[in-house]
Amino acid sequence: MSTKPAEIAELAVERAGGRPRDRILSVARDLFYRHGIRAVGFEAIAEAAGTNKMTLYRHFPSKDELVAECLRQFATKADALWDHIETAHPDDPRAQLAAWVAAMGEHLANADERGCAMCNAAVELPDKSHPARRVIEAFKTAQRDRLARLCAAAGASRADLLADELFLLLEGARVSVQSMGPEGPAAGFVRTAEATISDHLPRVG
Amino acid sequence: MSTKPAEIAELAVERAGGRPRDRILSVARDLFYRHGIRAVGFEAIAEAAGTNKMTLYRHFPSKDELVAECLRQFATKADALWDHIETAHPDDPRAQLAAWVAAMGEHLANADERGCAMCNAAVELPDKSHPARRVIEAFKTAQRDRLARLCAAAGASRADLLADELFLLLEGARVSVQSMGPEGPAAGFVRTAEATISDHLPRVG
Repeated sequence: MSTKPAEIAELAVERAGGRPRDRILSVARDLFYRHGIRAVGFEAIAEAAGTNKMTLYRHFPSKDELVAECLRQFATKADALWDHIETAHPDDPRAQLAAWVAAMGEHLANADERGCAMCNAAVELPDKSHPARRVIEAFKTAQRDRLARLCAAAGASRADLLADELFLLLEGARVSVQSMGPEGPAAGFVRTAEATISDHLPRVG
Repeated sequence: MSTKPAEIAELAVERAGGRPRDRILSVARDLFYRHGIRAVGFEAIAEAAGTNKMTLYRHFPSKDELVAECLRQFATKADALWDHIETAHPDDPRAQLAAWVAAMGEHLANADERGCAMCNAAVELPDKSHPARRVIEAFKTAQRDRLARLCAAAGASRADLLADELFLLLEGARVSVQSMGPEGPAAGFVRTAEATISDHLPRVG
């Protein structure tokens, strides 16, 4: 039995580095984020990953499943950022909160910023039965709760209020970059978030 | 020459009330908002409007133009809300600001809320050359500037800062409803916006 074109493509991808599944996910995450989920078809993903639709379907039975897996990977990346912040400022929740604001500010100033991949997916996939919806909802709840725990650890007496306000400011900044650019109201995110945190935390010293 | 099916459909629509162009726009606005712009094709719009693709193309040479016109109508509706607020509270910018916050709170609590149609369109249409982009960018800038003028009229010493903060809170609330529902952080929008306004305005009396 001769080598099938699909297998040749897989070999090419493997030679180019990375297993086909990883390459497909990396390419899909990038294309979905830049162009929108519905704007990118299986064909384009297969081509960009150096494989074909048959191989793609072998790894992901449907585009919906591929989208859900891409979002799970975004969630893992976001968790890694939180972990990095904790490690960089051990036992210093105030510094962790400040580092989180700074990191979000860097996201907003990035020229490739197209907002939060999870929020964007929620806009494009309103159907509650889509497998990505569970990923999005669980992610957003976990992010908000992690922020609230950090606000409480930093000494905020009304940690839930502070977390909700910071959460709304960030969500607003990330979505507004897409219609008004980084120089619009999003440019005020860091300053406003810092002032809000300062208002909620007890004075130091 | 016999009456063409397209004309029969148009007559049916006219009998059902409204000119075909108005019906197409009304149906398209609704379908785009509920399902997303890319999720809805010309065929589905034509069918829902009781017409056909040929008639649709006669009114709108492309889907891009139809999308842009739908967004222009959303902008007109938003302007009408501002005018209504001004008329309801003449020469009382503080009351107008409070009424604006309350009106936005009502949007957020609406079970059909799918966020801001303009922001959602920006997520789905990242291509800067899309005719809808100019509509979105002009709309957002105008909304933010109108809010800043109102904040200044209400006596805010740093009206631009206050407007940007309210703007981010609202954008954040409208996008977060789509991933966390109206009971999530968006539920705190009215209270947070009121407190923010109160912090920025001089005490009355």
